[in-house]
Amino acid sequence: MKYKRSERLVFMTQHLTAHPNQLIPLTFFVDKFNQAKSSISEDIRIIKDVFENDGIGIVQTTAGAGGGVTFQPKISYSRAEEIVEDFMGMLKTKERLLPGGYLYMSDIMGHPTLMNSIGELIATMYGREDIDAVVTIATKGISLANAVARKLNVPVAVIRKDNKVTEGSTVSVNYVSGSTRKIETMVLSKRTLKEGSRVLVVDDFLRAGGSITGVINLMEEFSAQVVGVSVLVEAKQVEHRRFNDYTSLLKVSDIDEFNQSFLVEEGNCLEYIENEFQKA
Amino acid sequence: MKYKRSERLVFMTQHLTAHPNQLIPLTFFVDKFNQAKSSISEDIRIIKDVFENDGIGIVQTTAGAGGGVTFQPKISYSRAEEIVEDFMGMLKTKERLLPGGYLYMSDIMGHPTLMNSIGELIATMYGREDIDAVVTIATKGISLANAVARKLNVPVAVIRKDNKVTEGSTVSVNYVSGSTRKIETMVLSKRTLKEGSRVLVVDDFLRAGGSITGVINLMEEFSAQVVGVSVLVEAKQVEHRRFNDYTSLLKVSDIDEFNQSFLVEEGNCLEYIENEFQKA
Repeated sequence: MKYKRSERLVFMTQHLTAHPNQLIPLTFFVDKFNQAKSSISEDIRIIKDVFENDGIGIVQTTAGAGGGVTFQPKISYSRAEEIVEDFMGMLKTKERLLPGGYLYMSDIMGHPTLMNSIGELIATMYGREDIDAVVTIATKGISLANAVARKLNVPVAVIRKDNKVTEGSTVSVNYVSGSTRKIETMVLSKRTLKEGSRVLVVDDFLRAGGSITGVINLMEEFSAQVVGVSVLVEAKQVEHRRFNDYTSLLKVSDIDEFNQSFLVEEGNCLEYIENEFQKA
Repeated sequence: MKYKRSERLVFMTQHLTAHPNQLIPLTFFVDKFNQAKSSISEDIRIIKDVFENDGIGIVQTTAGAGGGVTFQPKISYSRAEEIVEDFMGMLKTKERLLPGGYLYMSDIMGHPTLMNSIGELIATMYGREDIDAVVTIATKGISLANAVARKLNVPVAVIRKDNKVTEGSTVSVNYVSGSTRKIETMVLSKRTLKEGSRVLVVDDFLRAGGSITGVINLMEEFSAQVVGVSVLVEAKQVEHRRFNDYTSLLKVSDIDEFNQSFLVEEGNCLEYIENEFQKA
């Protein structure tokens, strides 16, 4: 079967976006379409232009015998603003406030379209970093970690608070939970994360930062380097956080259980993305 | 800016695959490209043909004022075979065998490309069903549930074994864990799942079926209808399973800890997909 250019473009666009951050050898398309390399290169140029003009991502080609094409998701600044705004609209509803000043967020974590968009946003922030794995804490962080890891094309390592028979040998650290002031334990299966990995830590909510500090300590046990920490929501007005360098999509403050109210504002992620675009 | 057909096809292909099972109004593309509806319809026809010939999915158009186009992921039978085979290759390594005859699977659950492919496979199996939510049990099932829900474009509801302050009001049921014979509890936040939903239940491993039976009981409390149960791996040679109708990708049997060996074979998912294609 002979493919026309229009048909090749449809197939290639689908294939590239379905395999983010993965080198596709040019020969894959050459063989599939039975076309000269020069035609395939021209197809890729068309895709590259649309992807870059429409804020979908970067298309990089590498020359030579082992050459190929890589699609790296990278959204535009205005798309990032839109995602943060959508998320804010969802978070703002006062029915989210639970006894103890906690926010109900399970529906947000279970919203695949929103998680996918946020995954693109976080992958855009850290796309220039060399990342081997996304690390998160069970249970809530897992959906976010999956969304980010899918875009970066790296594995997810899930830290647990209990030690299960299905994990094999584990490494554990103790940490002080910021909210309850209790000493708790977190464990990570030894084979889930390679020694010396460069990791991005993600989580749903950052309160006092006790568990993220625990994660950072646990990463030391794996000789891993924490490239970044990114959370969906941070609680403002919390002091003594034991790490400074993190990004957040939203900030929550002035939680008032009696009046059932709280304030939501933008986190620092848009600033971070703006800087990324200036560097690029 | 005027888009050429080639450029429109790239954008539209990306947009459709990024929004599976979501109706995109034709006017979205008409306005974006400043083109007549007839040209856009011709673009869609090209995409539809490639998607159907190459086993990417179905493209459905609905006519009229509120008309639009929907992309539904549907992989080919040969692609499904390939996914099952890849997964089998990964699962077969004997280093997975843990004390007690458990299998280490955390790396599989944390492998975003594999999870995405399996998500497409399960979405292909249940694509003709009317599904409102994907339900799973924390922690291991979450990555699979996300992958499936993303393709079906429905929310995920995560059942937990502990009751957290961040869940709000919950409904709980007790169940007998098949492996430990202990009575355990599972809880689901009331607002995570609408009453009367049609749900697809997914999980990583099916052993005696105690926890899936628990999920089915819990679903009754939500007046939810279980449309299907799909697991990655089932243990063969287990009797007295309290439900019969489920799909699995792989079956594991003859687990021999002493000789560090076990058998892996195909589950019934390929049969199920074959039937789906015959019905279509």
